Amino acid sequence: MRHRIADIATALGARLEGDGAIEVLRAAEAGQAGPEDLALAMSPKYAETLAGGQARVAVLWEGADWRALGLEAAIFVPRPRLAMAGITRALDEGPGIALGLHPSASVDPSASIGPGASIGPFVAIGPGTEIGPGARIAAHASVGAGARVGAEALIHAGVRIGHAVRIGDRFIAQAGAVIGSDGFSFVTEEMSGVEEIRRTLGHREEITEQGWHRIHSLGTVEIGDDVEVGANTAIDRGTIRATRIGRGTKLDNLVHVGHNVEIGEDCLLCGQVGIAGSAKIGNRVVLAGQCGVNDNIFVGDDVIAGGGTKIFTNASAGRVLLGYPAVKMETHLEIQKALRRLPRLAAAVAGLQKAVSKGDRTD
Amino acid sequence: MRHRIADIATALGARLEGDGAIEVLRAAEAGQAGPEDLALAMSPKYAETLAGGQARVAVLWEGADWRALGLEAAIFVPRPRLAMAGITRALDEGPGIALGLHPSASVDPSASIGPGASIGPFVAIGPGTEIGPGARIAAHASVGAGARVGAEALIHAGVRIGHAVRIGDRFIAQAGAVIGSDGFSFVTEEMSGVEEIRRTLGHREEITEQGWHRIHSLGTVEIGDDVEVGANTAIDRGTIRATRIGRGTKLDNLVHVGHNVEIGEDCLLCGQVGIAGSAKIGNRVVLAGQCGVNDNIFVGDDVIAGGGTKIFTNASAGRVLLGYPAVKMETHLEIQKALRRLPRLAAAVAGLQKAVSKGDRTD
Amino acid sequence: MRHRIADIATALGARLEGDGAIEVLRAAEAGQAGPEDLALAMSPKYAETLAGGQARVAVLWEGADWRALGLEAAIFVPRPRLAMAGITRALDEGPGIALGLHPSASVDPSASIGPGASIGPFVAIGPGTEIGPGARIAAHASVGAGARVGAEALIHAGVRIGHAVRIGDRFIAQAGAVIGSDGFSFVTEEMSGVEEIRRTLGHREEITEQGWHRIHSLGTVEIGDDVEVGANTAIDRGTIRATRIGRGTKLDNLVHVGHNVEIGEDCLLCGQVGIAGSAKIGNRVVLAGQCGVNDNIFVGDDVIAGGGTKIFTNASAGRVLLGYPAVKMETHLEIQKALRRLPRLAAAVAGLQKAVSKGDRTD
Repeated sequence: MRHRIADIATALGARLEGDGAIEVLRAAEAGQAGPEDLALAMSPKYAETLAGGQARVAVLWEGADWRALGLEAAIFVPRPRLAMAGITRALDEGPGIALGLHPSASVDPSASIGPGASIGPFVAIGPGTEIGPGARIAAHASVGAGARVGAEALIHAGVRIGHAVRIGDRFIAQAGAVIGSDGFSFVTEEMSGVEEIRRTLGHREEITEQGWHRIHSLGTVEIGDDVEVGANTAIDRGTIRATRIGRGTKLDNLVHVGHNVEIGEDCLLCGQVGIAGSAKIGNRVVLAGQCGVNDNIFVGDDVIAGGGTKIFTNASAGRVLLGYPAVKMETHLEIQKALRRLPRLAAAVAGLQKAVSKGDRTD
Repeated sequence: MRHRIADIATALGARLEGDGAIEVLRAAEAGQAGPEDLALAMSPKYAETLAGGQARVAVLWEGADWRALGLEAAIFVPRPRLAMAGITRALDEGPGIALGLHPSASVDPSASIGPGASIGPFVAIGPGTEIGPGARIAAHASVGAGARVGAEALIHAGVRIGHAVRIGDRFIAQAGAVIGSDGFSFVTEEMSGVEEIRRTLGHREEITEQGWHRIHSLGTVEIGDDVEVGANTAIDRGTIRATRIGRGTKLDNLVHVGHNVEIGEDCLLCGQVGIAGSAKIGNRVVLAGQCGVNDNIFVGDDVIAGGGTKIFTNASAGRVLLGYPAVKMETHLEIQKALRRLPRLAAAVAGLQKAVSKGDRTD
Repeated sequence: MRHRIADIATALGARLEGDGAIEVLRAAEAGQAGPEDLALAMSPKYAETLAGGQARVAVLWEGADWRALGLEAAIFVPRPRLAMAGITRALDEGPGIALGLHPSASVDPSASIGPGASIGPFVAIGPGTEIGPGARIAAHASVGAGARVGAEALIHAGVRIGHAVRIGDRFIAQAGAVIGSDGFSFVTEEMSGVEEIRRTLGHREEITEQGWHRIHSLGTVEIGDDVEVGANTAIDRGTIRATRIGRGTKLDNLVHVGHNVEIGEDCLLCGQVGIAGSAKIGNRVVLAGQCGVNDNIFVGDDVIAGGGTKIFTNASAGRVLLGYPAVKMETHLEIQKALRRLPRLAAAVAGLQKAVSKGDRTD
């Protein structure tokens, strides 16, 4: 599809200079951009590659001299990363799910599908479900009995939406995501070893052989508007109440969300983050890749945790965390510095012991 | 479905007081319970919310005065968490897989399906398979050639059971679980860097360019009775012998079990745990979320490891572990305490060095 | 299927002694091998079990006396692990995907499928796709619009290949793998907390409430020849350019590869490894299970990282890494040793302080 760059500039709310009638097919990095591409060159470091290339039009850093770069037009953006949101949205042609209902799809007669939906091959939509208008559902996705998905959903191939799950508008789920698996909740007849060591911080009196009784998950999952869930991510349903994900929160690939968890609004949970059962996460929390959150704790609003941070205890709002176990990022950096000096420190202490004992002897 | 609370009490083996003929539709937390709910209030802390609510009947802590709480009946349980197993089992209405064979399913004529099975849309069951009586298999699940699944299985949407896999009775697999992927096993023509550093603990003589030859997985996966596998969990087949998961063991979401691994009975492996190839895990082992177990080691019976513990070497039976690398939990806590004091310790040593050298000088 | 052991020896390029006409059905570990098995006994430690068993033929360690072990023939291999590659390849009967197009599969008329393909039940192949000759595609796999997969691919059940993805020859994808999910890329209108703490190393001036704008993924994924991808692994597409995986690289189960990542040739990424967006990994890099690589960094050629290593900063070629944060393996081992002595060190310092202050006092 061809896009007039004047339209792109308007969509971005950005300043255009030069010939706005030029049309582009796609975006390209400065070095690869050809005459039908919108070159992305939002920093002066791209000046040289751009000038040597074939691009006719580019998105440039504020203050760039587009004519000197050999361009015929340019779009100027104050915050390049933000502009990327607008540019990529404007040029996204989507995953190519054909409009209408694919003849191989299985839609229960009691399901309600909104107008303008695109439903791919072998999609299975169960009884009593509600799918909002404009939904795009790719091959092999399944929507369980009584589930509800809001307007304009984009559900990629093989996504599993379990029975009774409730999801807001503009939901995006990457391939293989599972919403509404059963919680992982088991109990022994007598006190278990895990219950014991939580009380004693590691000591066990006597070890007995016990099996596990399953606690079934009667709750569901409730997801707000504008939520995105990554590939092969799994979100468990609650035991009695619902597991909840707030409006605007985004989950990356392979994220694990346990039963009864509540996640606030506008959070980012990056790849392979794990949230154990009944944890409560505030608003605007950012957890970098491979972070873990213990069960039954809370993580306050605006907490940011670096990659691989394991949060074992409650974290107050606004904290910046790092480490295993999680500590304030500055504490972590201090400890790491001290750790690297630790062998030297040990040598210094050995030296002191020798000096002092020698001092004793010579007294 | 309506449930008489006298029946629920009987199923739980619990004491009922008041009107056992009352019927409930579902369970609810104390604060949300309405007149058709069984309120869950197993601790005195719920007394107030319960008294102010609309519940007619509740599960209560031993010694509670149900009449004073405004109830018409009450069930009393000695171990609340255990009671949850019975209550949720009694009230679970299941994922709504319709009885019988969905017309869109593809079942090979040579497959043997037990009586009372429910097989959903687009399920693919390969040649020579055996599915036990009472199985429930949701949309898009696949069972490979020659695989065997025991009685009363509950197989959620999109589960992948590979060829020749053998699974016991009452198996539960959450959506997207993969049983019987190939092992990750590769070899170089000459000794590889990995083989070298395992010998030298980190030193490499000379780095050569080498590619990988694939070791194919001829083995299968064997799973005992009463095993549960979480959403998007992956269990690799063995190279020659089978990968084995013992009776009663439960795996959470996104768990990775490598080739040739043997896991004993009644274990719990929580979310995102990873077990590398040929590791051996004993009975009743509990690994909290994001734990890792090195290849070719053993973890003894009744070991419990806290969240994120990385077990690099053999762990004796009964150990309680924490940390990266794993140490005894008490050692870990001690080290962490010392670590937080490390900057202060370094300052103390610097002070001592000054004092001692000054002492030297004044001598 | 029966295999003449003379043929197996030829395929391995290995020396055969005894009766090469003997036929075997499968391979078995030394202790379990029956008369129709090829016993695997590549080390003298198997001598006893083998001599006591029923095997007629075995793969033996160099120098073994096969007649004394009661065998009728033997294959001798110099590097046992390497021999396993040849033996298992020769005996692998595959997952049993029937040749030809299953009648339930949905193949768009504009798709081009090479000769000799095996396409299973409910496979969905989109418009404009190209599937090379000899491909085996198991049940429920999907290939999005315009994607290209090379010759001799083995694509297991439920694999998701997104639109426009380009993959080389001899590709293997385990069940549930996702190639071409959207990148996880979001931006706030003003500078976000994450951007701030990257600059300040943990300090935040003022916390403001902000939501996330989505950066769409217009790029694709490009995968070289001889690549293997594990079960439920997810590989994101690039934002503008492609995410790239080089020839010969193997990814294990549940691996996460973020957008724009470039991985070189002949790498091994073990179970649950995570590579954050725009990271660059060299050739022959080996990352053990649960490693993490930060976004926008590079990991040089031939780097090897032990289990759970979290790489936050650029790693030079040839480094052997361990730890969180990653340090040289020898440094890590040294630090761990010092850590275990830390409580004792603290006691020594306390002792010294007492001694020195006493010395002061007695002066």
